[in-house]
Amino acid sequence: MPNTVDGRCDLADALSETARVVSERLETALPPPEGENARLHEAIRYGMLGGGKRVRPFLLRHSASVAGADDENALHAALALEMIHGYSLIHDDLPAMDDDALRRGRPTCHLAFDEATAILAGDSLLTLAFEWLADPRTHANPSVRCEMISGLALAAGSMGMVGGQAIDIAAETMTSVRPGLVTTLAQMKTAALIAFSCEAGAILAESSPETRRALREFGSDTGLAFQITDDLLDAIGDEHALGKAVGKDAGRGKSTFVSVLGIDGARQRADDLIDRAIAKLEPFGSRADMLRKVARYVITRTG
Amino acid sequence: MPNTVDGRCDLADALSETARVVSERLETALPPPEGENARLHEAIRYGMLGGGKRVRPFLLRHSASVAGADDENALHAALALEMIHGYSLIHDDLPAMDDDALRRGRPTCHLAFDEATAILAGDSLLTLAFEWLADPRTHANPSVRCEMISGLALAAGSMGMVGGQAIDIAAETMTSVRPGLVTTLAQMKTAALIAFSCEAGAILAESSPETRRALREFGSDTGLAFQITDDLLDAIGDEHALGKAVGKDAGRGKSTFVSVLGIDGARQRADDLIDRAIAKLEPFGSRADMLRKVARYVITRTG
Repeated sequence: MPNTVDGRCDLADALSETARVVSERLETALPPPEGENARLHEAIRYGMLGGGKRVRPFLLRHSASVAGADDENALHAALALEMIHGYSLIHDDLPAMDDDALRRGRPTCHLAFDEATAILAGDSLLTLAFEWLADPRTHANPSVRCEMISGLALAAGSMGMVGGQAIDIAAETMTSVRPGLVTTLAQMKTAALIAFSCEAGAILAESSPETRRALREFGSDTGLAFQITDDLLDAIGDEHALGKAVGKDAGRGKSTFVSVLGIDGARQRADDLIDRAIAKLEPFGSRADMLRKVARYVITRTG
Repeated sequence: MPNTVDGRCDLADALSETARVVSERLETALPPPEGENARLHEAIRYGMLGGGKRVRPFLLRHSASVAGADDENALHAALALEMIHGYSLIHDDLPAMDDDALRRGRPTCHLAFDEATAILAGDSLLTLAFEWLADPRTHANPSVRCEMISGLALAAGSMGMVGGQAIDIAAETMTSVRPGLVTTLAQMKTAALIAFSCEAGAILAESSPETRRALREFGSDTGLAFQITDDLLDAIGDEHALGKAVGKDAGRGKSTFVSVLGIDGARQRADDLIDRAIAKLEPFGSRADMLRKVARYVITRTG
């Protein structure tokens, strides 16, 4: 990992270094595209190896660095996080869900393959993520591995990411949405997994409850700001830079941070959240500079 | 658990006792049908609490008893197995997969709710199964919990259950199926999880590799016989007793043990497999009588 302790390292370089290493390791971690179920494995690889910013692995690696965990452990665990993220995109894109045709500039998995294969590819990745975390390469201490598994499952399950997606879909057909629902669903759908990505660094370092809470809260606020930025990009972003369709939320009459707060209000809310996120990093001094930079990047990105 | 050590306990009583305890515990283990995502949680509960023979929990409990593991641990872990089985049924019934309308005598989950909710209910259960296994109630030793998680993920993932379902769907559109493919896919789709249900008893008991292998092989052969019986029931079973449609395989021109071996050939194959399965239990003497009985039941059941 490029030197981050002295804070001199450029964010763009650090992001692309993690993206490169994660993609390389996924190449061998994912099942090979051969044998009786080659098609399923091709769909898994298609969904995982077509780019992606690898933001969650980046947050885990750099939270681990701040907390003092081993980078090899962090990188191993980071693949599991990316598998969960990848499975959620494949399932969210399905016709019965968000019905998206384009992801990272390519046809979505169910269009490149078929719907059944896409459902099963997602199921495979979700399963593989936990197999991966149970491996001693996550951490020599099996208690730590179990904590990682519990934490990931809580963040990804029906009280977290999957629950948020369910509310999101239900909200599309609601005639009125209660104030705060947009925040609740973003916290579940997006922020829970990003909060876990950061907390995981502290879990791997077997840190104090204070460090664990500070990193989790940093991740939670950053994750919420990430979703606000996604809503802004859907409203005013560039389809080419994003590699996916824009204007979908307004087209569906969906409640988002933009529909509730307006463009300027949503931008202000994201700014405030990132200020609050960065304030949580105060105890870590300059060791946390890369996390500060990536938090600012989250709300200024265009893709 | 009713006394099984002396072999006097009646199988039907023992099966219904496990079914009752598993259903009762699932009532509290599954997320409550209230709050913002009540509908998702209702779908999860609908999929899990509408009956079911609870064969995998039964095999785990009784393999644990044979191996000398604690029944409370076995029962806790058994819920995770049943969650995996339940998620697989919800996803398999989807329109893009087997497109089934009836399950255990009731509308399938995506008809009782909707397709998106059914996909997310399956995803939630799959995630919850691993959270559940990571809990200390599975076993005090976290290494054992990690082994349970790895083993379940391997049995359920793209090299096991999910991979088998992918091949099964692909085989429906093949003009010719190679000899042995029907066996390979049944081993993956059905036998892998049943083999793990039995091996798990030995994992929880921290048994010798020999005991672990004997129980796994017993489960693998029993699981294959289970799938042959499913194929037979689809060909000649009673829709009312089964609680699901029959004659689907022939209607789809699907390769099954019945289409490959004929009715009598498939019956003979199932008998031979159960004989072989029971032979693996020889080292355990009368302690394994309940496993012997349930193996015989697997191929004589009508529902």
